[in-house]
Amino acid sequence: MGVNANRLLFFSCILVVTGYCNGGRILVFPEDGSHWVNMQVILKELHAHGHSLTVVHSSRSWYIHDRSSLYTFISVNLTSTEDASRGIFETLLERSLSLRRMTPILRFFEQQKDVMTMLKIFHGVTLSIISTILDDSALMGKLQDSKFDLMLTDPAFPAGVLLAHYLHLPLVYNVRWLNAGDAHMAIAPSTPSYVPMYNSLFRDRMDFLQRTENFLRYMVSLLQEQFVILPIYEELLKRHFPPGSDLLSMQRSADIWLMRVDFIFEYPRPSMPNVVYIGGFQCRPAEPIVTELEEFMQSSGEHGVVVMSLGVMVTALPKHITEAIAAAFAKIPQKVIWRYVGDRPSSLGNNTLLLEWLPQNNLLGHPKTCAFVSHGGTNGIYEAIYHGIPVLLLPLLFDQFDNAIRLETRGAARVLEVSTLTSKEFLEALKDVIKNPSYKSNIQELSELHRDQPFSPLDSATFWIEYVIRHKGAQHLYSEGSSLPWYSYHNLDVVGFLLVIILAVLWALVYLVKFLCCTPYRKQKVE
Amino acid sequence: MGVNANRLLFFSCILVVTGYCNGGRILVFPEDGSHWVNMQVILKELHAHGHSLTVVHSSRSWYIHDRSSLYTFISVNLTSTEDASRGIFETLLERSLSLRRMTPILRFFEQQKDVMTMLKIFHGVTLSIISTILDDSALMGKLQDSKFDLMLTDPAFPAGVLLAHYLHLPLVYNVRWLNAGDAHMAIAPSTPSYVPMYNSLFRDRMDFLQRTENFLRYMVSLLQEQFVILPIYEELLKRHFPPGSDLLSMQRSADIWLMRVDFIFEYPRPSMPNVVYIGGFQCRPAEPIVTELEEFMQSSGEHGVVVMSLGVMVTALPKHITEAIAAAFAKIPQKVIWRYVGDRPSSLGNNTLLLEWLPQNNLLGHPKTCAFVSHGGTNGIYEAIYHGIPVLLLPLLFDQFDNAIRLETRGAARVLEVSTLTSKEFLEALKDVIKNPSYKSNIQELSELHRDQPFSPLDSATFWIEYVIRHKGAQHLYSEGSSLPWYSYHNLDVVGFLLVIILAVLWALVYLVKFLCCTPYRKQKVE
Repeated sequence: MGVNANRLLFFSCILVVTGYCNGGRILVFPEDGSHWVNMQVILKELHAHGHSLTVVHSSRSWYIHDRSSLYTFISVNLTSTEDASRGIFETLLERSLSLRRMTPILRFFEQQKDVMTMLKIFHGVTLSIISTILDDSALMGKLQDSKFDLMLTDPAFPAGVLLAHYLHLPLVYNVRWLNAGDAHMAIAPSTPSYVPMYNSLFRDRMDFLQRTENFLRYMVSLLQEQFVILPIYEELLKRHFPPGSDLLSMQRSADIWLMRVDFIFEYPRPSMPNVVYIGGFQCRPAEPIVTELEEFMQSSGEHGVVVMSLGVMVTALPKHITEAIAAAFAKIPQKVIWRYVGDRPSSLGNNTLLLEWLPQNNLLGHPKTCAFVSHGGTNGIYEAIYHGIPVLLLPLLFDQFDNAIRLETRGAARVLEVSTLTSKEFLEALKDVIKNPSYKSNIQELSELHRDQPFSPLDSATFWIEYVIRHKGAQHLYSEGSSLPWYSYHNLDVVGFLLVIILAVLWALVYLVKFLCCTPYRKQKVE
Repeated sequence: MGVNANRLLFFSCILVVTGYCNGGRILVFPEDGSHWVNMQVILKELHAHGHSLTVVHSSRSWYIHDRSSLYTFISVNLTSTEDASRGIFETLLERSLSLRRMTPILRFFEQQKDVMTMLKIFHGVTLSIISTILDDSALMGKLQDSKFDLMLTDPAFPAGVLLAHYLHLPLVYNVRWLNAGDAHMAIAPSTPSYVPMYNSLFRDRMDFLQRTENFLRYMVSLLQEQFVILPIYEELLKRHFPPGSDLLSMQRSADIWLMRVDFIFEYPRPSMPNVVYIGGFQCRPAEPIVTELEEFMQSSGEHGVVVMSLGVMVTALPKHITEAIAAAFAKIPQKVIWRYVGDRPSSLGNNTLLLEWLPQNNLLGHPKTCAFVSHGGTNGIYEAIYHGIPVLLLPLLFDQFDNAIRLETRGAARVLEVSTLTSKEFLEALKDVIKNPSYKSNIQELSELHRDQPFSPLDSATFWIEYVIRHKGAQHLYSEGSSLPWYSYHNLDVVGFLLVIILAVLWALVYLVKFLCCTPYRKQKVE
């Protein structure tokens, strides 16, 4: 205990020495959907630390509403007609399920087409939001007068990045994706030889052909960035920023990248010193649940409870799949709590409780919970890891297929193909996840590793945000490599130059040898 | 204060949750000289945490002696005659000073020759130590029976790495150099485009020719590793390890790399998730000094004290340089404390106190200290940064020239060329460092950044060592990239394959076009 006390003393000293930072003015530009769910966790913590928070959002947001008294909201009324409606996810899901039935090569091309369409829609909406803001001189004046200390943004789409640069604010990211690619790629060296690309469904150990496909995927993503995304913002940059401004440099220049990654889940890969890993920061010990729900949990007796949720984006699966799942649930001795919106499935058993919303973290941390059926969204996966609950995964969209492979590789989950799912298959897999002790022990091992950190991920996020406020940035962590063109970064110009020199020397040598050997010979011949 | 208390509570919870680890059995294989000075700081901390420590060292060590009661020592009696005597540093210094007077190109080649000689000497001694250990079956039996939890080693030379692999122990590094190259290069991608190589004297922003030289230096270091270092251990590997064992893979497979780097000093560069930065872990608040020394400090009045030390390796500079420095010291109003071994310089003033050993950290943290004259060793530089004392640097050997550039770039130090040093020059530079407030304010800014960490570097070192004990390794942080051959790691095989395909398709197209266009034409011609 002496050593513990010693550590605690050191820790409190650090807080005093470093001028523990209160009362910063933070401008927040979040993304919608599940990204907003986890951004709120950080915002609540920052509010508890006494910072004042101003959240910018579109008046057409699905989830970000002016309800919380914790923040000041700036609601941007979009003048353009461009919009991505909530219904888009149902369309995407339908398409995703049909893609799963295609041959790999066809799927690759169709996927790329879909990605292009999505990028155009979402970046179009982003452009519309940031244009509206920058064109509104009254609003810009107000923002400038507010003298914010910092912009905290999720840079999946670059509205927050552009606004921060316009206002000359230090920049902190709460990030996993950037321009719809992995955020690591933007600042650490790209290593498609062992870092599987988004949607590749590869592991970190790839054979030659997989590495070739992965490399091609990487190239395609660079081309998409260059020829699809960047042109969208060209006109805006010309109108509002100094000549020569480019979006990629702005994105790379963030002071701190709070990366929603933990390497108990993600494959190890390089990163830069201004990247702070906060994967699982939203996880916390379970709190008591409402009496009715607690009674339902307890009624499961020795069998326990299965919790199912497909996240906030997708409200409903196709009807025949829902029925197949409901029928399988009806056949297990466990109780089931299912986050479900829509018509009650006809095959639903008495053991299954449908709820439009559920306290996921508190249920996963409940001692009666024995398995989690999930779509494989990052938030849910980290909560399952934190609480050590084995998972049955039904990936539907985006990075969920890649997430599923990562958890499956570690023996902590079973993964099912939703597009061809049968009730029998679902039942067999669910029973396996509940009864086979290896899933439980593997995810508990991950849980132990995840919890064994010198500093909680959420405290880490808060520390580094306040660090940037205290020091007005963290540009000493910014790498000169980010300023180099790609061919210089990868030494291609140097290698080319050296090759030219080597070839010139070789050519000169050959010429010299020819000259020395052949001249007398020719002379002889002539003689 | 509520939030502080909250953090402290969280922190103590973490210690409980993670099963705070007591009583590990740690085998330690340190390096000699200044490396041992800083390894001891970690060892004392581990001892305070209740771990038992066994230190392996050569009986001919310069600094590692069986005096401390904190550790069990295993002293290896070398049978071979190979040895690197203490005097080697004087020879190296003489040579280093003469190199400084050469033209850059000649210096480059001479430096490489010196590096080769040094590598052969030090790796030869290392081979002799590890051979003696592995050949001593009684000692090996004892080590195997001791059932250590972990090997903690400084892998600058690989004796500890080899022993750990032989004993199948989890491996933690206290590291900055590996095979005499920067340890980063072994596991993170090599990026000579913006990471200056050892002894290049470049900054992180290089022009094209500097990048070319830096790239060549990188290539040379790879060749040295391949053709000078690895062959030294070949026979030993064949004799004691399974067929196919190779040293580079062993070195790369360490569980945790405690890297003696902080990016307030080093240029930002990529690293892998199992690298933990502990730069400056040896720094601590100053403790009171002995009365005589305190009285001397106080006698300096308003002028303050200059502290000078050239580290533990070099005991004396050439006589004319020593006299030049002593004469300059005699002309300043400050008092001077000089760590000095040898004959008293004739030009020494009354204001200068010579000491064979000085409590460097306590002196640098003393309120009367106003400047530090140093050779630019890493330990001293971090202490100067920690206490915010401006530095006058006289780099002599090894990485000291590169260190000097890093501190100079940040405006926290002046650097002098020792080989051509005059008393006047030294006096002018020293006065500048003392009087020009920019050095003080720049190094104090570095000090603030360095101290502003969520967790002290020494606690971080202890945490991760205990983490490896708790989880019997940290192989989930090991990157698949480390198992790839270099051409696959850099995607060269994939790029080659794709180029062949592209060329084949182009060739086929050209052939086809020729065939389609020319055939009728020829036919016509024939007709």
